[in-house]
Amino acid sequence: MARRPVLEFWYEFASTYSYLAAMRIEDLAEEAGAEVRWRPFLLGPIFAAQGWTTSPFNLYPAKGRYMWRDLEREAARLGLPCLRPDPFPQNALSAARVALLGADRGWTPAFTRAVYAKEFGEGRSIAEATVVGEILSGLGLDAPAVLKESQSEGNKTRLKALGEEARSRGIFGAPTFFTEDGEMFWGNDRLDRALAWATGERAGHVSASGRGSA
Amino acid sequence: MARRPVLEFWYEFASTYSYLAAMRIEDLAEEAGAEVRWRPFLLGPIFAAQGWTTSPFNLYPAKGRYMWRDLEREAARLGLPCLRPDPFPQNALSAARVALLGADRGWTPAFTRAVYAKEFGEGRSIAEATVVGEILSGLGLDAPAVLKESQSEGNKTRLKALGEEARSRGIFGAPTFFTEDGEMFWGNDRLDRALAWATGERAGHVSASGRGSA
Repeated sequence: MARRPVLEFWYEFASTYSYLAAMRIEDLAEEAGAEVRWRPFLLGPIFAAQGWTTSPFNLYPAKGRYMWRDLEREAARLGLPCLRPDPFPQNALSAARVALLGADRGWTPAFTRAVYAKEFGEGRSIAEATVVGEILSGLGLDAPAVLKESQSEGNKTRLKALGEEARSRGIFGAPTFFTEDGEMFWGNDRLDRALAWATGERAGHVSASGRGSA
Repeated sequence: MARRPVLEFWYEFASTYSYLAAMRIEDLAEEAGAEVRWRPFLLGPIFAAQGWTTSPFNLYPAKGRYMWRDLEREAARLGLPCLRPDPFPQNALSAARVALLGADRGWTPAFTRAVYAKEFGEGRSIAEATVVGEILSGLGLDAPAVLKESQSEGNKTRLKALGEEARSRGIFGAPTFFTEDGEMFWGNDRLDRALAWATGERAGHVSASGRGSA
């Protein structure tokens, strides 16, 4: 059986549009014949480096008001619930550390969807390690052991390195998708095109060195 | 003949994604059975009010690099040329004043497309009144008379008032679309949904007062 093309899915647990992408990416990838690599990372350091101390949706109130209404419309269109957690954005450190740990063990997709379902489906906090532990238990995992391992120096360092990789590859928001040939797509609105590109359906494929991108 | 639903199209001549929307909105509106109200406005004062002295695509280089690549891909997909004018963003004051003047006279859509074709199709400057004049002449209009009228106090005041209306209605970027029931859609990516909403095809229509938008 031929190896399937890979799409990298970089997401942040506090990100509203990452929620929409996470809930549908596996079905869409399956249809397209692609494989998803889940990359949970923290956007906070990238925002901080450009002088933002919180979500741009809080810093720019008009944009924030629009985003919540757009999220509500888009979620309804996709058949997903949509509630706003308080505070927004949620501290996603515990969840990101745990999600990273599950990447090699196969449960990161299910864990990620469960976190988002609680956060933006039920509007509840996902910041506390106890909540993350409950989600792990709900998946039949050994919550205390996973939480402890997620807080190890090795795993903390790995999450920091992933954040550094995100920045160095030009990521400035979430969700962001990368195809194997290095093409980058930003936003839930680009998920379909990212999958099409990953699987070779490059309608209107243009050279990356074309003058238009200079 | 029944009155057709109206979609307001708020655009800024310096805006790259407004270019993509402007080049296709009339065909799409015709298909959907809607009427477009063209609203050329200046985004600069809105950006300035939130502390931005230039385009966010210049202020945030990673976002800017991505935008040019995404614009190139999207333009190719839509069969449109894509070249970057220097400098970016272009000063759009002359063009906006003229476009506003044509709104009641029927030539604003053609004028707008001609400006964008020069700016982002050919990568040329549209900042000078002489260039704007050439575009007007190309449309068979009396360029000196139109330019002179566009610089009248009455027209300048009207453009400022339109900018104030944009801000007060929550516009934070361009293109932005409004349906007659006040629903706002931001971005070229939302043009299809805005038209669907305007014409009553509200799949997943949710209440504006739902908790999710709080």
